[in-house]
Amino acid sequence: MMQHWVRFRHAGEEGFGLLEGNAIAVHSGSIYNSPRPSGVHLQRDAVELLPPSQPSKVIALWNNFHALAAKLGVAEPAEPLYLLKAPSSITRPGATVNRPPSYTERVVYEGELGIIIGKSLSNGSETEAQAAIFGYTCVNDFTAGDIIARDKTFAQWARAKSFDGFCPFGPSVVTGIDPSGLTVRTMLNGAERQNYRVDDMIFSPVHLVAALSRDMTLLPGDLICCGTSLGVGAIKEPINTVEVVIEGIGTLSNSFVQ
Amino acid sequence: MMQHWVRFRHAGEEGFGLLEGNAIAVHSGSIYNSPRPSGVHLQRDAVELLPPSQPSKVIALWNNFHALAAKLGVAEPAEPLYLLKAPSSITRPGATVNRPPSYTERVVYEGELGIIIGKSLSNGSETEAQAAIFGYTCVNDFTAGDIIARDKTFAQWARAKSFDGFCPFGPSVVTGIDPSGLTVRTMLNGAERQNYRVDDMIFSPVHLVAALSRDMTLLPGDLICCGTSLGVGAIKEPINTVEVVIEGIGTLSNSFVQ
Repeated sequence: MMQHWVRFRHAGEEGFGLLEGNAIAVHSGSIYNSPRPSGVHLQRDAVELLPPSQPSKVIALWNNFHALAAKLGVAEPAEPLYLLKAPSSITRPGATVNRPPSYTERVVYEGELGIIIGKSLSNGSETEAQAAIFGYTCVNDFTAGDIIARDKTFAQWARAKSFDGFCPFGPSVVTGIDPSGLTVRTMLNGAERQNYRVDDMIFSPVHLVAALSRDMTLLPGDLICCGTSLGVGAIKEPINTVEVVIEGIGTLSNSFVQ
Repeated sequence: MMQHWVRFRHAGEEGFGLLEGNAIAVHSGSIYNSPRPSGVHLQRDAVELLPPSQPSKVIALWNNFHALAAKLGVAEPAEPLYLLKAPSSITRPGATVNRPPSYTERVVYEGELGIIIGKSLSNGSETEAQAAIFGYTCVNDFTAGDIIARDKTFAQWARAKSFDGFCPFGPSVVTGIDPSGLTVRTMLNGAERQNYRVDDMIFSPVHLVAALSRDMTLLPGDLICCGTSLGVGAIKEPINTVEVVIEGIGTLSNSFVQ
């Protein structure tokens, strides 16, 4: 059964619960381990939504779509290629993301499917990986594009993708959904810029989780950004709305202010 | 005044305190914000030392020593170059680090000076950076050396340095010390393999903290591994002791088992 889990701040307290239409059924305990309904319901509009998990790490895939690899003319990788984004880059759905004062060049949006881990996993099989996935979310993997290749000796992936605010995700984590039929769309100021199918991934979510768990222990709440495909572009207006829309999961909307 | 702060587990509880000879003066509150002595003293040998901070992120410098840049024949960078290590790679001083079952090739030790942040810092000046540094520690930045360049299109720094156990640090964080006169030595099975001066850094600790704070908000507990210099080498014996010794800071000792 598909469920939409959110985290929120209300009356100065953080909480979590299930989205039910325009209401949130507040729960207590651990979101990953038999959460219990508290009986309290809040209106979604009455709370501030938070990032729907608190990742100890954010793993972001590079070159994980057939179409983008073909367009860029890069070989498809033999195994998942990834970097880490600093957790301090995480921000909430709806947040305004400001251009970093120290960076004047090109910032790009990257709409992506995000995987949220629900169970600790190390050296997992694909079956165990499937069981360790809590759910899926929308991510905007903002990137300071002109930093990556600025130094000829060392590609600065972590730096380019770790500015404060460069990792909004949400608005919810959706459980009980097969992502393979989903489509990721990214809208910049109302115009569609990305529209690609999840099943064009080189490494599927379950494959990614199993492979990554051979490199490091994945922990509940950890976020895996599955990589992006065609249509990445620079943000040019002074004030922008960037929406990552995945039908069945939700719409992540953030402002980017230059 | 120089102080040695440790975190520990004792009788199933985690705590922190000041090292005083062979005793630990247990404190309460926040280690970064006016910790209060509890009056309790524990013998150091009676507790299990933990990593002396709980970093939300681990930033690891590449190519930050004049001598190593010269030996490798790489240009000295115009600005700090770094990657992120997954927090799941952190382990305690004294821990046994096991070779990852998924990796059969070369593992190297890298003895390094570590900076522990004590105050949140964003876009800081060097004066603010100095005030944001809580103290210094010893780090062993274990690296799966043969992963980095395995893929020709993408240097896999985060992966090579994020296996579980690949980031031991400690045993303490030392406050009130000027690191510029320190020497980092690394001993493999009792034989000295690294012996280099901190003042050979291309970017000093204070410069690093200021520069990094322009890329991302640094948070209390965050660990910055300042990079290594000459003498990095592969670990070849079935069972090994690797010690990172910084006179005035301490000795970080870990076993590495193949």
